[in-house]
Parts: sequence; C-alpha cells; structure tokens
Amino acid sequence: MVSIRDISKHTGLSIGTISRYINKSGYVSEKSGEKIEAAIKALDYVPNEHARALFSKETKLIGVIVSSLSNPFFAELTMYLEQNAKEYGYGIILFTSDDDEEKESEALRSLKAYRVSGIITTRTQLRKELEELNIPIITFEDNSCSNVISVSADNYLGGQLAFRHLYEKGCKKILHIKGPSQFYATEMRYEGFIHEAEKYGVNVDVHEFLTDYKLDYDLKQMIKDIDLSSYDGIFAFNDIAATLVLSYMQHIGIRVPEDVKLIGFDNSYISGLVNPKLTTIEQSAKDIGFKCIELLMNNIKGEDVSQKEHLVPITLIEREST
Amino acid sequence: MVSIRDISKHTGLSIGTISRYINKSGYVSEKSGEKIEAAIKALDYVPNEHARALFSKETKLIGVIVSSLSNPFFAELTMYLEQNAKEYGYGIILFTSDDDEEKESEALRSLKAYRVSGIITTRTQLRKELEELNIPIITFEDNSCSNVISVSADNYLGGQLAFRHLYEKGCKKILHIKGPSQFYATEMRYEGFIHEAEKYGVNVDVHEFLTDYKLDYDLKQMIKDIDLSSYDGIFAFNDIAATLVLSYMQHIGIRVPEDVKLIGFDNSYISGLVNPKLTTIEQSAKDIGFKCIELLMNNIKGEDVSQKEHLVPITLIEREST
Repeated sequence: MVSIRDISKHTGLSIGTISRYINKSGYVSEKSGEKIEAAIKALDYVPNEHARALFSKETKLIGVIVSSLSNPFFAELTMYLEQNAKEYGYGIILFTSDDDEEKESEALRSLKAYRVSGIITTRTQLRKELEELNIPIITFEDNSCSNVISVSADNYLGGQLAFRHLYEKGCKKILHIKGPSQFYATEMRYEGFIHEAEKYGVNVDVHEFLTDYKLDYDLKQMIKDIDLSSYDGIFAFNDIAATLVLSYMQHIGIRVPEDVKLIGFDNSYISGLVNPKLTTIEQSAKDIGFKCIELLMNNIKGEDVSQKEHLVPITLIEREST
Repeated sequence: MVSIRDISKHTGLSIGTISRYINKSGYVSEKSGEKIEAAIKALDYVPNEHARALFSKETKLIGVIVSSLSNPFFAELTMYLEQNAKEYGYGIILFTSDDDEEKESEALRSLKAYRVSGIITTRTQLRKELEELNIPIITFEDNSCSNVISVSADNYLGGQLAFRHLYEKGCKKILHIKGPSQFYATEMRYEGFIHEAEKYGVNVDVHEFLTDYKLDYDLKQMIKDIDLSSYDGIFAFNDIAATLVLSYMQHIGIRVPEDVKLIGFDNSYISGLVNPKLTTIEQSAKDIGFKCIELLMNNIKGEDVSQKEHLVPITLIEREST
C-alpha cells in the first residue's frame, strides 16, 4: 500500500509538507502542491482514512443499525441509506439488531469504537443510551427519544387511509392484523385505523402478531384462532403479513378480492409480485433513506436541527386485492 | 468522548504507559495495569479503533460489496455476512454496486482508503483489479480470478437437479428462463440444465432475461415474445423471476402446477410466501455467509488457503408448483 512516506521519497518534500497539503492544515507552496499532486497520481496513492480520522476527529463513516434484512422494506431502506451516504462521501458500517436489545447495545459499542461521525438506528430498544450518546443520531420509527431527531412515515395517516379505502369498497366486517405492540410504527398504523373506524361508527376486530416476520415464521400458529372467512376486509400491518395471509386464504379457498378485500403496508416489491397484486400504503424507502441521510449530514455539519420529529408522506397504492 | 488523555489524568500515569498497556505493545507494571483497568471502567473508555488501526496495521473492518439489496437472496446473504463477521469481532462496511463497474470500482477505492482487513465481493465486474489488490479477498459467484478465493453454490448441479425434477414430473415441452449472460452463477445453472436435458435427449427452449430484477423491472417487456402456454415445465434462474412468471401466468389463466410446472432457484423467503408455494433449488445464504467469512478470516490470519474454489452444496426443495 502506497504511504505518505513514498510520496515524500518521490517528491523530495518533507512528510510534514505533504501532510499539510493532503489534510489542508497549513501553507504549502503552489509548486510543491503540484509536485505532490503528480506523485499522488503516479503512485496511485489513496489517503489512509484512519490517519485522517485521528487527525481531523471526523471519520467518513456512519453507523447503520437495522432490525433485519429479511424484511424487504428494511433491506431497501439500507440500500438507499448506503447510496445517499455515498453521495456525501460517507461509507456505512452496518449492524443488524434483530430487534434484540443486547445486539443493539453491542452494535452501539462497536460504532463508538469505530468513532463513526453519526448513527442511524431503526426501531431502537435503547432510548436512554441514545440520548446519552454524544454524537449525531437519527432514529427511524421511534420518536420517543426527547433530544434525538426522528424520521418516520406518517403511519397514523396510513392507518386512516387504509380504513377509509376498505370502507369505500363496501367492507362491513373488518379485521386488522396488527404488529407487535413494542413497535412504534405499527402501533401508529393501528391507532390511525381504529380511530378512523370509530369516526365512521364501524366496529373492527383486532388480532396481534406477536413477532415480526422471521425466516422461520410459523403463520399457522399465528392465525390459528381466527376465522378469516367471517370478514370481508382485512388491513395487515405490512406487506409480508398481507402476503402470508393472502397465500393462506387462497390455500383454504377464500377468494381475494371477491370474498375478502386485503390491504398491506410498505409497498415493498413483493406487493407487486403476488397475484392478485396487493393494494398497499406506500412508505417510500427511497424518500426515507434520503431524509435520514440529509438530516444526519446537517447534524454532523452542526446546522440547525431544532425540528426533532420528521414525518415522510405516505400514499395509497390501489392494485388488485381490494 | 473519553480519550487516553482522560485515562492519564485519572490515573496520574503517562500517556505512553497507557498506550503500551492498551495496545499490549510493551511492559507495564501490574499495579499500573490495575489502575488503568479501573479508570477504563470508571470513565467508560472505548478504545479508538482508528488509533489501533494505525498502530497495528489491522482494522477490525471488512468491506462487503453486494450487487443489490432489492434481491432478497443478496439481502439475506449480507445479513449473514454481518452476523458471522461480528462473531470474529469484525464490522462490515457495506457498498452496493448495482452490478455497475464504475460503482464497484469506487467502492474498492473507498475500501482501500478505509484500510479494511479484507473484502468480500459478489458478482464482480473487476477481475483484474481484484487480482492486483494486495489484501485478502473472497469473491462470491465468480471463480475466474486466478489468484482469488471464490465461493459459490454448486450452480451447475442445481441446473441438473432442476431438469431431472421437471423430467420426473412428466414435463415434455420445457422452457428455461436464463439470467443475464454476464453472470457466472446463472450461466452455470443454464449449462447444468441444458447438458442434463441433452443427456436425456430432451429439447429445451431458452429465453434470456437481459437484466436481473430491479425495482422498476418491466416483466411484460421481458417475456412479450414467449407463448408460455405452449410449455408444460419452466425452470427460472431465480425465485424472483419464477414469482414474476407465476404471477403473470395466473393473470392470463395458466394454472400452476396443473398446466405448467414451475421451479425457481435460491429458496429465498418469497418462495414460501406465494401461492402455490414454489419448488426451488436451495442455495443457503446462511451456509454461504458462514463459508465466506470463515475463508476470509483464515486468509487474514495467514492460514493455508491453497484451495481457491469452494462450492457450497445445494438441495432441491419440493413444494406446490411442480
């Protein structure tokens, strides 16, 4: 690996001069600057980011802690976080937490050791630790840290839109399959949905899934006590849950949308892959990824971040399942 | 952030002593060691990995360049790479390449700057650059770099198994939807499939998808010239392609498996979500993630890595679509 020493040998200039030039930390004559530039090109020198980090106190790395990449929404979000960070010249160190407090805590500890310039977490379990961490942080899907900037989709409105859509399609016997109650985002969807139903004077049954989708998910166990055929409209808390329910209903002979209308949440790519294609509430992983990185970069640069809570708009995407 | 300076103030010991202790780089008395340990605990000091990296020439970071996280197989693989790296005390810096040479080249350049201890790439376009890079590398789904260690599923055998399965199910008019020809893995699946068909004296039609799945994928454009109803057996190069074709066939009234039997590849989670559930060839993201990290760690530690090509076993998973 080419080092600053090799540049020094090649140009005949001192290491101090070259370091000043590369780190823009003091005066270097124009002539020397040109020599150094030429040597950097000739030797294909890449600055050592660790040396730069020690010197400038600022790494070009941010930490991302994501619940799981087996959920396609979080996988897409991670991709957009990486792509947007790159635009600002930052790399991401990725940790998955599996929504486990211990794993999230370990990840935070590692990210501190790597001296990342900032952190983005999803569905954090560690509100207190985050508040005490003295670096820029953005939480996705949790607005309960008082001094931390949060981004989330407008989940409450999403729940309202989902109800109104089923109602307008004529559904009378409605079921909401809600997410695990520890998750802020799915709790908001649930609240928006049932409050809207109350407004319209419609009674809604609610069935809670106790865990989010995992690769070894046992759906039959999750819905064994529900008689799905007694409903004509179902709102599931995300597209995976909706797809599982869709597949199960087809399996036992319930037709979608003829017998039951079904709506999901996320607009992750699976909603367009299944038959019938899912009606869903879109939260744009692309917009959210952009917003998280933009806010984090502003925070790192020390710009005004007085607004703590940021809601990203959502949209109803009508397809074939309703 | 607590620094080595604070430890020095707290203990009254010199920075040199503390640095020797933390980096295990020279003699420190037992008594001083105990004082330092106590201060580390009291102040919640986390060693700066950048300082450690400069000193030891070894970062606790590896680079991962993955094609795309919108492909669920690669998302799962990334998750397992992260989880396995963590077991060895390593974090991952993640880049997505979108199978774009320019983006992969930028990612390699950034990873060099971060002085990662090793790199794992998927579906590389930069064989020459990788061969010249003087750090441990594992390529996934490309064995054409002569001096680089490669891991891949046994794709050729997978193609053979797929053919034999359709054949045993009585299929006579068989179509293979193959992946873009620049991808080593899908090319192997194709070769295994058609060579096996030749052995059995069966003629197979082949239709090539020109790109891998993207979020804005236009399936109708991809298959507009094929009369799917003229076949009774289809092998698609991955589960997403299979799911797209399944959904499209159901849409135009072709029944699976009654009219056409369909088999995918990957056993990513969508194969279990759709109705009918997909028969597929499993390549285990878990096993592959484990193997990649194990080989990379052996390589970083300087252990014997004379075997360059590593094939991970694959399995036929029979479900409802055949």
